[in-house]
Amino acid sequence: MKRALGVCYYPEHWPQEMWAEDARRMVDAGLSWVRIAEFAWSRMEPEPGRLELDWLDQAIDTLGSAGLKIVFGTPTATPPRWMIDRHPDMLAVDANGTPRKFGSRRHYCFSHKGYQEECARIVEVLARRYGANPHIAAWQTDNEYGCHETVLSYSKAAHEGFRNWCAQQYQSVDALNRAWGNVFWSMELASFEELELPNQTVTEANPAHRMAFRRFASSEVVRFNRLQCRILRQHSRAPLLHNYMGQSTSFDHFECGQDLDIASWDSYPLGFLINRTDYDDDHKKRYLRQGDPDFQAFHHDLYRAVGRGRWWVMEQQPGPVNWAQWNVAPLPGMARLWAWEAFAHGAEVVSYFRWRQAPFAQEQMHAGLLRPDSAAAPALGEAAQVAAELAEMPDAGTAQAKVAIVFDYPSVWAWEVQPQGQDFSGFKLLFDMYRGLRALGQDIDILPPDASDLSAYELVVIPGLFTLSDGLRAALAAYKGYVLHGPRSGVRNKDFCIPAGLGPDLPGVTATLARSESLPPFAPMKLAAPGNFVKWFDHLEADPQQVAEATADGQPALLRAGNVYCLAGWPDPEACQRILKNLLAEAGLEAAEMPEGLRQRSTQSHRFFFNYADGPIEWQGRSIPAAGVYWQSLADDRSGSANA
Amino acid sequence: MKRALGVCYYPEHWPQEMWAEDARRMVDAGLSWVRIAEFAWSRMEPEPGRLELDWLDQAIDTLGSAGLKIVFGTPTATPPRWMIDRHPDMLAVDANGTPRKFGSRRHYCFSHKGYQEECARIVEVLARRYGANPHIAAWQTDNEYGCHETVLSYSKAAHEGFRNWCAQQYQSVDALNRAWGNVFWSMELASFEELELPNQTVTEANPAHRMAFRRFASSEVVRFNRLQCRILRQHSRAPLLHNYMGQSTSFDHFECGQDLDIASWDSYPLGFLINRTDYDDDHKKRYLRQGDPDFQAFHHDLYRAVGRGRWWVMEQQPGPVNWAQWNVAPLPGMARLWAWEAFAHGAEVVSYFRWRQAPFAQEQMHAGLLRPDSAAAPALGEAAQVAAELAEMPDAGTAQAKVAIVFDYPSVWAWEVQPQGQDFSGFKLLFDMYRGLRALGQDIDILPPDASDLSAYELVVIPGLFTLSDGLRAALAAYKGYVLHGPRSGVRNKDFCIPAGLGPDLPGVTATLARSESLPPFAPMKLAAPGNFVKWFDHLEADPQQVAEATADGQPALLRAGNVYCLAGWPDPEACQRILKNLLAEAGLEAAEMPEGLRQRSTQSHRFFFNYADGPIEWQGRSIPAAGVYWQSLADDRSGSANA
Amino acid sequence: MKRALGVCYYPEHWPQEMWAEDARRMVDAGLSWVRIAEFAWSRMEPEPGRLELDWLDQAIDTLGSAGLKIVFGTPTATPPRWMIDRHPDMLAVDANGTPRKFGSRRHYCFSHKGYQEECARIVEVLARRYGANPHIAAWQTDNEYGCHETVLSYSKAAHEGFRNWCAQQYQSVDALNRAWGNVFWSMELASFEELELPNQTVTEANPAHRMAFRRFASSEVVRFNRLQCRILRQHSRAPLLHNYMGQSTSFDHFECGQDLDIASWDSYPLGFLINRTDYDDDHKKRYLRQGDPDFQAFHHDLYRAVGRGRWWVMEQQPGPVNWAQWNVAPLPGMARLWAWEAFAHGAEVVSYFRWRQAPFAQEQMHAGLLRPDSAAAPALGEAAQVAAELAEMPDAGTAQAKVAIVFDYPSVWAWEVQPQGQDFSGFKLLFDMYRGLRALGQDIDILPPDASDLSAYELVVIPGLFTLSDGLRAALAAYKGYVLHGPRSGVRNKDFCIPAGLGPDLPGVTATLARSESLPPFAPMKLAAPGNFVKWFDHLEADPQQVAEATADGQPALLRAGNVYCLAGWPDPEACQRILKNLLAEAGLEAAEMPEGLRQRSTQSHRFFFNYADGPIEWQGRSIPAAGVYWQSLADDRSGSANA
Repeated sequence: MKRALGVCYYPEHWPQEMWAEDARRMVDAGLSWVRIAEFAWSRMEPEPGRLELDWLDQAIDTLGSAGLKIVFGTPTATPPRWMIDRHPDMLAVDANGTPRKFGSRRHYCFSHKGYQEECARIVEVLARRYGANPHIAAWQTDNEYGCHETVLSYSKAAHEGFRNWCAQQYQSVDALNRAWGNVFWSMELASFEELELPNQTVTEANPAHRMAFRRFASSEVVRFNRLQCRILRQHSRAPLLHNYMGQSTSFDHFECGQDLDIASWDSYPLGFLINRTDYDDDHKKRYLRQGDPDFQAFHHDLYRAVGRGRWWVMEQQPGPVNWAQWNVAPLPGMARLWAWEAFAHGAEVVSYFRWRQAPFAQEQMHAGLLRPDSAAAPALGEAAQVAAELAEMPDAGTAQAKVAIVFDYPSVWAWEVQPQGQDFSGFKLLFDMYRGLRALGQDIDILPPDASDLSAYELVVIPGLFTLSDGLRAALAAYKGYVLHGPRSGVRNKDFCIPAGLGPDLPGVTATLARSESLPPFAPMKLAAPGNFVKWFDHLEADPQQVAEATADGQPALLRAGNVYCLAGWPDPEACQRILKNLLAEAGLEAAEMPEGLRQRSTQSHRFFFNYADGPIEWQGRSIPAAGVYWQSLADDRSGSANA
Repeated sequence: MKRALGVCYYPEHWPQEMWAEDARRMVDAGLSWVRIAEFAWSRMEPEPGRLELDWLDQAIDTLGSAGLKIVFGTPTATPPRWMIDRHPDMLAVDANGTPRKFGSRRHYCFSHKGYQEECARIVEVLARRYGANPHIAAWQTDNEYGCHETVLSYSKAAHEGFRNWCAQQYQSVDALNRAWGNVFWSMELASFEELELPNQTVTEANPAHRMAFRRFASSEVVRFNRLQCRILRQHSRAPLLHNYMGQSTSFDHFECGQDLDIASWDSYPLGFLINRTDYDDDHKKRYLRQGDPDFQAFHHDLYRAVGRGRWWVMEQQPGPVNWAQWNVAPLPGMARLWAWEAFAHGAEVVSYFRWRQAPFAQEQMHAGLLRPDSAAAPALGEAAQVAAELAEMPDAGTAQAKVAIVFDYPSVWAWEVQPQGQDFSGFKLLFDMYRGLRALGQDIDILPPDASDLSAYELVVIPGLFTLSDGLRAALAAYKGYVLHGPRSGVRNKDFCIPAGLGPDLPGVTATLARSESLPPFAPMKLAAPGNFVKWFDHLEADPQQVAEATADGQPALLRAGNVYCLAGWPDPEACQRILKNLLAEAGLEAAEMPEGLRQRSTQSHRFFFNYADGPIEWQGRSIPAAGVYWQSLADDRSGSANA
Repeated sequence: MKRALGVCYYPEHWPQEMWAEDARRMVDAGLSWVRIAEFAWSRMEPEPGRLELDWLDQAIDTLGSAGLKIVFGTPTATPPRWMIDRHPDMLAVDANGTPRKFGSRRHYCFSHKGYQEECARIVEVLARRYGANPHIAAWQTDNEYGCHETVLSYSKAAHEGFRNWCAQQYQSVDALNRAWGNVFWSMELASFEELELPNQTVTEANPAHRMAFRRFASSEVVRFNRLQCRILRQHSRAPLLHNYMGQSTSFDHFECGQDLDIASWDSYPLGFLINRTDYDDDHKKRYLRQGDPDFQAFHHDLYRAVGRGRWWVMEQQPGPVNWAQWNVAPLPGMARLWAWEAFAHGAEVVSYFRWRQAPFAQEQMHAGLLRPDSAAAPALGEAAQVAAELAEMPDAGTAQAKVAIVFDYPSVWAWEVQPQGQDFSGFKLLFDMYRGLRALGQDIDILPPDASDLSAYELVVIPGLFTLSDGLRAALAAYKGYVLHGPRSGVRNKDFCIPAGLGPDLPGVTATLARSESLPPFAPMKLAAPGNFVKWFDHLEADPQQVAEATADGQPALLRAGNVYCLAGWPDPEACQRILKNLLAEAGLEAAEMPEGLRQRSTQSHRFFFNYADGPIEWQGRSIPAAGVYWQSLADDRSGSANA
């Protein structure tokens, strides 16, 4: 498949006279996809039942006729104002019990039946009208599920949904009481009617209760999405996708992705960098106008997994945004680098957000490819350069990685429910391991927690997986390569109880988790070898012969039994690099210690280098300018460089 | 007019037997004004309709007979408890939807019709009774509008008021939809009935929506105040004033001031210093017992503008207060310095708060001129010293400044609505420029945003003005002196949209604002000349010949076209001083680089020096002790120094 | 009386088959007490009125037959879910007006009459059934009153209770108005019906109002506890106790203790250390796995006073807990050290929490003496060692201290109501003085604010006592020893007003408190002698002959009149040590400057040394290992050391 560029466009924001010229300029810039419609419900249906779709017919015709393929977004993230009068209780309710009102977007509770019916109705209308339209080449469901922390709702609808979900899961309230340990603190329930939402309790609710609510809430997103998918598929053969977000873990994207054909995500490297609380200011300053060198790659690899191989960047940052704590412009070249990095990780389409900066409303400070006055913004030229390069570049395909890392959304929830140490984050633990592997030059596949076949990999890393599925157990049992478990893996059953035998309940690991400690930032735990454990330490009782590494005071730090390793703590970057490098060597994989800011990624045909530093990097005879991309053919060592 | 001292007094707090002695001691100390009554509603009207005013007659008679002029405060900031039973919905409601209950003060919503009527009733009673009383020499309306963040209320009354205000402003809901860009995110409304308050939305509401609410809320304060003014003027010829506050920007004081004769403000230098979040600890430590050397002067100049020349300090800090994060005592001499600084900036009256420290209730830790045991507190002697000096000092009049700076309340709201960078503050930007000019020895006038005649000035500075009124445009067009615009000036229309052509929409500026960046504290932008931009940078596309200064990487930093300069970023102190000094030279004004802690201010007859440092300062042959005031006649070089 | 060990046990969490073996292992480990039942209401009464107590009979029989003495806890801290349906308004309400829901524990308002009746009913049932049971050797009422900030409730029940309480206290609303100074800000009330709770006011409520509410809320806890005590005493002769907490000051424990026979507290040294906000990271790092060296001792001494000599540790931390910001394991030896320290301070029983770590629910990460798999956790062996040592150790009795410090719960509330400086804390002030005395090797008694006989002491320290009771005045008048008052002592009447004459209203002190200052952390006040005042300074006007120490700028810092000293500020550690050392010398007491981390405490027969450092300490010829205890007989210098 040929890689392509796209853009997000809002014809309803501009006079109809401008549409044709806009379309022409898109095509001229080398864009071939355009996404429309996802926030336009108030224009499609200005009053309940009164549809106005002529303008949309026109827009589709204009864009399509110009040669653009259209992604049509269902408008369900922005129900019009009249919808609230029809369904006053459709608003989500926050943890304090306050309804989240109309006036921005995503003002709905996923569990509200009435709103679900309204969504089904409008999607049906649109699918019938445009399902067979030749210009409609893909459908997007809704927009950014979970944005603005909208997955968890404490509404009446959610309460009823949760009771029913638990009744379904546990069948009897006694089973629930037993599974959750409700005898503790006399929390036992006499019926599902008595089950409340886990907010506003005097102190923390039962972690099993909270975890069940997280699972329920995730499943509500999946159901909400599935409803639209079913309708769309009845009327259209175009592929379905949703635009996920960065560091978005509030629902299970793997489950959601089962109903879609393609995963896509919205990549805003500079906003993500500034708003992340676990980077220090030095790091933010170093990558201020480039973004974190691993954050995008991580999500590319994650969404490739969510999309079972097919994935896009649906929204690509083109310039300053409006929503981060501070908002700067990218270095010249970054709008090109980010696109090429996505392609190197297997993206089919990279679509910039948005075509023209809006002079009004909430995103008026969010850059586009055009300025509000229709002049070209800097990213337009970079997009055009990418388009030209794509035309020259044979489709490289996605490389098969040799290293995999297992990512599990429920584990992120589990450690949010029970951090035990104030700064513990399942996402951050996994990301640190990912970064460690990338800094050693590895291509990485991210695997879902029910991966059934690991045979393609030499090394599989499984950090912080709170409980293992039967499927993964089986896959590990059959696996011949190297495994690195832990820390904090295999330590709970699915109802959030400590397993009999204490765990870690991991194939090939015979140690016992006597107890765990969370470590404050001022008290890292020194290892005998260079580096420290930070944030977390598992006291593993093990056969001394299995102790591959120890802490400075002699406790097991890394266990080994055959090809199976188990890590007892959260390694700091120094320890992480050292341990991973040893493992890669053991697994027969070549490690390249990448210079600060430089990253590499291979496709089937090429190796790409991305320079995230703000100065040039010389490496292994290659010279890569700041914000530059460099690629070379794996076949013939033919090479091409960036920012030419 | 002769300058005078005053004091705030609460006869209702003390046995009637003490009043005459208190009055005598006030007069002995040289005080000639006394403010009373503004919190005494429960004593004036203990039950609805049952008036008890004999005590007030007595108090007025006692104070007036002693020779004091009385400022009578209307008691509407503290409605009695019975009022809440009559009007349960009169309480303001906070942004979370919670009513703000009785039990302190300012427990009312400005928009509540029933409470407005009650205010009109009590003011009418008081105005009829005392309007012609010869001792009543001024009226104060209410007390500290906006204190405790009381301007914004999300009550039902405010909601109705806001709908009506918007209907009035926009006439049709389609006009509102278009003006605000409500097509964005399907926020379009079908009627004004559908318009909600901009709180509790899922993510930020439309900035146009929020800005309109800020304008509405400000106008409600103005209306509330106007109601009292009209009644008072029917019965009294005494001048009307209100006591505003420091760094109080939640309503448009210029508009409010139109209905009053005099502006006054409540000056608490030590509390303001400690509570300001944008000073670092070094600065707070240096000026701990003196206050910031520019903060009071800024407000003196501001309220001189609000009062169209006539202004007072209604409440002057005499010792430790009770409301700052920490509360220390002023250095000996400061109670005198602050008073003299106010007079040097043109104050008619400086009134200390309060006469005697109350041993009970919320302000029991707030110092007065007397201690609770009636012994003199340290400030009493300093006040007496000022009174004696005033008697010697010819009335100096207010000097005509050569430099002006435009201050606009709506711009402060605009950048609160849309900071874009976490630490952006319109007030702080303007204050930084003011400080820069003061540190160069300038007398400064602050101008309202509708200033129509700039001809008195050699230099006018206009920073962060989000949109320019037609009046100011005309004034600038006619103006021959130097102008320094920006940063972030002229960048929106009044409905918070980016202007066609992008702006900056400033007379004499032809550049285009391609895009803006907010800069994190750890990433200032270096200039080619000494200094940096911090917090903000506007990418200005301009004729290269107009580039007077550039950033270190070559982008326009300061534009010049004739006498009109435009600044592209927020200058740090070094850049600010450098640029302003150049401009002053250009404009033919003498700049004096004041030593740290020393400030000067001229009247028509004298130049005053104020030493805010905690040690003596030698400067240009003058020796000024810590916390000391030094003045010299402009005519004959006769001089008098402080703390003698 | 023989000292003994105990443990907390939840038979309802485990299969009945395990109980006998658990009991046997407890006895084998040397434990003689076991606490049960305090969270088991849902098992005692699964439906309203349907009692199921057979299992409890069995558990008591099994444990008792094994030789264990039982503490029976009334289950009123965890009402079952059905209780909420019977009394929907029994939930406490937080300061924002939000009910605090079912789903954890302590979900009740102390003032709710209906819930009080339910408590009386279940306690009556249990007292009748087990009151004469020979195995029941003590009763615990409820569990950790005040935990999770549950003393203050803003419910309807609390509102009614508060009105009645105020009516009782003041008899007429005019008396209340006068006492509180409600004339201020027109806060006067016409009836008690008009009195509101002091939450959600626009700015702070009257401190007198808030203080009254604190007093009322405390009295509600006392009444709630008294109700259970009366019933228990009707049916049982076993002693009554409650398990208080560390740094728990929200109700008056001295008053509560009047109805009980024994005080006990729950000691979690590592959790307390990490969660305290007034320690810096260095301190937390140094004592991370040992706990603060004075925090436990302080509470031992406090609860010895609350229990009028009889006190226990009801819950002793055995390993990592689950509720601190970070949770680490104690150093080996600490579970023994903590127990011995309690005994040295006079504890009758030290009871570990809990027997076996639960694999489910909220405390699954809270260690026990056993792991969830029933294997011994590290603390079990340490407990057994203590038990063996106790068997050898003659009962030492509690030593009579020579130094006392007065602790007053209402004073803590007063300074929470009116900190005046952001970091002022009455608890912290007192604790700093306590630490100063401990660091000088003193045994200390803590005295209640109504102590009537001080004759046993050479030195009495009274810091931050906002008002003195008549009883304490009389005791001080009769006292011949040394007294150190202040700072911030004797400065209010009981209605939170400044006393006539300003204070400090302290026997033997003739100075006048002209004014006070709170000092920011960056501005300590230097003393003429080494050290500083921090946080607080009282300007004391005094006879110059009484000035024993001055500040660096010559203000009185320490007054002396005969044996009575009065401190004008909050001394930093250096000043505190210096001043206290001088006073001890004056009072003829021997001061020992203890090395960092080492503390001593004497019983009637022995002197104990506790090494809280993480390395060995050599001191005066003794060698004490890290986490070690060392004791020597006062009679014959026989000594025994720790960690052997």
